[in-house]
Amino acid sequence: MANARVDDALEIIARGAHEILPQAELKEKLKGGKPLRVKAGFDPTAPDLHLGHTVLLNKLRQFQDLGHEALFLIGDFTALIGDPSGRTEIRKPLTREEVQENARTYETQIYKVLDQTKTSIVFNSTWMDTMDAAGLVRLASHHTVARMLERDDFNKRYQGGYSIAIHEFLYPLIQGYDSVALKADVELGGTDQKFNLLVGRQLQEAYGQKPQVVLTMPILEGLDGVQKMSKSLGNYVGITEAPQEMFGKIMSVSDELMWRYFELLSFRPMSDIEKLMEGVKQGTNPRDVKIQLADEIVGRFHGAKAAKEAQEEFVNRFRHGQMPEDMEEFKYDSGDEDSVWVVPVVTAAGLTPSNSETIRMINARALRIDGEKVTDRDKRIASGSTYVIQIGKRKFRRVLVARGHTQRQDS
Amino acid sequence: MANARVDDALEIIARGAHEILPQAELKEKLKGGKPLRVKAGFDPTAPDLHLGHTVLLNKLRQFQDLGHEALFLIGDFTALIGDPSGRTEIRKPLTREEVQENARTYETQIYKVLDQTKTSIVFNSTWMDTMDAAGLVRLASHHTVARMLERDDFNKRYQGGYSIAIHEFLYPLIQGYDSVALKADVELGGTDQKFNLLVGRQLQEAYGQKPQVVLTMPILEGLDGVQKMSKSLGNYVGITEAPQEMFGKIMSVSDELMWRYFELLSFRPMSDIEKLMEGVKQGTNPRDVKIQLADEIVGRFHGAKAAKEAQEEFVNRFRHGQMPEDMEEFKYDSGDEDSVWVVPVVTAAGLTPSNSETIRMINARALRIDGEKVTDRDKRIASGSTYVIQIGKRKFRRVLVARGHTQRQDS
Repeated sequence: MANARVDDALEIIARGAHEILPQAELKEKLKGGKPLRVKAGFDPTAPDLHLGHTVLLNKLRQFQDLGHEALFLIGDFTALIGDPSGRTEIRKPLTREEVQENARTYETQIYKVLDQTKTSIVFNSTWMDTMDAAGLVRLASHHTVARMLERDDFNKRYQGGYSIAIHEFLYPLIQGYDSVALKADVELGGTDQKFNLLVGRQLQEAYGQKPQVVLTMPILEGLDGVQKMSKSLGNYVGITEAPQEMFGKIMSVSDELMWRYFELLSFRPMSDIEKLMEGVKQGTNPRDVKIQLADEIVGRFHGAKAAKEAQEEFVNRFRHGQMPEDMEEFKYDSGDEDSVWVVPVVTAAGLTPSNSETIRMINARALRIDGEKVTDRDKRIASGSTYVIQIGKRKFRRVLVARGHTQRQDS
Repeated sequence: MANARVDDALEIIARGAHEILPQAELKEKLKGGKPLRVKAGFDPTAPDLHLGHTVLLNKLRQFQDLGHEALFLIGDFTALIGDPSGRTEIRKPLTREEVQENARTYETQIYKVLDQTKTSIVFNSTWMDTMDAAGLVRLASHHTVARMLERDDFNKRYQGGYSIAIHEFLYPLIQGYDSVALKADVELGGTDQKFNLLVGRQLQEAYGQKPQVVLTMPILEGLDGVQKMSKSLGNYVGITEAPQEMFGKIMSVSDELMWRYFELLSFRPMSDIEKLMEGVKQGTNPRDVKIQLADEIVGRFHGAKAAKEAQEEFVNRFRHGQMPEDMEEFKYDSGDEDSVWVVPVVTAAGLTPSNSETIRMINARALRIDGEKVTDRDKRIASGSTYVIQIGKRKFRRVLVARGHTQRQDS
């Protein structure tokens, strides 16, 4: 491949990446001109993807657009065993049927992002089921206890006196061996996977292969801009969520976080995005730029028509005075709680003079949160999210409910 | 089984044992009255047994005489893999044929001690070859990294910064799993095997079995009474050595060590041995008692006739003035050397006035070591052994060649 084109490809691949290890090897591989085998591993348990997961999928897609092949690896081997230590009820083994079903669920979701013609969905049970105990002993001989204990989480547990079962040392090796079995050229993963990805690199060398290049992507922040996007933290945008919900959630992110989402979630060239940034500096309303982001992402998962409708509905709500464009912001400290009672939040935000008044407003069906009427006076709302809270037609606050020890987001 | 008979059995089993863990469980098992399955594991590499190895075999035999079954386990599974880390040339994998051949060599040796009708020779490849990787993951889930690192040698290596490959953590588990596969009731091993034997106990519990009782036997001291009996230290009695050689070597041990050998190597009841001790206290020449020990052991491996002949030859050498019964003893410090040049030893022992005189004696064919003529003036002799050194017909010394830092033996 011509050097100039390699440099262009590298720029696309490096976009948003946290680390490329080693970058020189990636360049060599790209120069070779052959389609690369780009692996990313996914959990075999029931998938319910949110935008955080699509950071990796997007990167896979970028590789595909450059002519490479995505290996969507479902790590079902260990899930078929379950947690053999029997310590948790949660990790009971999946059946083959459940794995197949989860794979189908993945398929319905991932091809919104990935190019199906350049994607192979593979299961590591394919090779691990035929490996015998002797093979696993050989595999285990290629890594040392000391290096395994360098892994952050293992290290903390060992130092802290929390037990690590020996099979837990085997999992990173099995995951790494997947790269050997797949002859992966590149493996993508979150920054939290760096150790495991490097094990794959090292095992490929031990098995006489050219080692894969490791590319780590940052973990996407949730809507709060503070914690990582996660279902349990409530700060996520699920990729199967309804268009209006999705649109509204994306519109709720801060102007700062918007650029981060552009980099990691949009497929627009970085040069376009830089122009948008310049525009905002020159006075463009960030809200109008955010609408373009929301439009692109909703369009990806629901089609252009649904995106257009969601946008119209959203704009109407603003334009017709239902919700002000700029509203006062307020931070509510949830202490250490995962969720908080809604009443004192509303009061503290200054929307009513007292809790009893807030309750009266609820009884009078005058409270809305994110546009939805709240009629349950016992309602709790999750920490780690931002809400638009509204009393009657005119009083609005944007309220961030956050744990006291979390960092303050830029607002 | 009647309590009195159980107590008798326990006394026989406990003879010479270092630890029985836990003794109460052994008593329970014996009370059950059923033949117990008593496992001991052996190396699959070419066997060349010496008396040190027979300490375990003797204990197995005692169990057999009490009606129990010996499981002579050859740990061939890992030997068939070799050292998968490829770090040592030495541990290259054995072939099935080599394992079979080594097993036959064991058979020709062990039935001098064991009762063939109550012995099963078993190979752990039988069950390990059919275990898949998933089975090994499950196995590994039953032990923790922290507990494995408590094992003395692992701990030293980890603390010392020497690498431990992860498969090395799997070997104790595989060895322990052998007890599960064999449903062992008791496992015997040297004191250095205690950790591994306890892993077997713990794995049996994890797999829903009654845990085995662990019985450790001390490591037998070599002829020097200081270091463990070992071929490489030269202080051993091989069980295939010629009758006269064997007889003479046993006669060379100290009077103190003789009682140790009686306890661990003789099949005479302890009550008999106590009578012999009493006899020596009353004035019996320990040499005559030692002859009984040598006679029993040589008889075991070569038959009564050969033992009688060896004894006669030995006695003749003494009686007919070829070698004095009591001779002066001398300790030669070998520094840190595995072997030393013979000339200064002879000189230092006071048998000649100078090294040049010693060399003259060698040239004159007047030097004998352990009855054998020495004609090579460059001859070296191994550290850690006692030698009878003789110049001409009359001058004798019993010389212990020992490393400076080893403990002085009682003499």
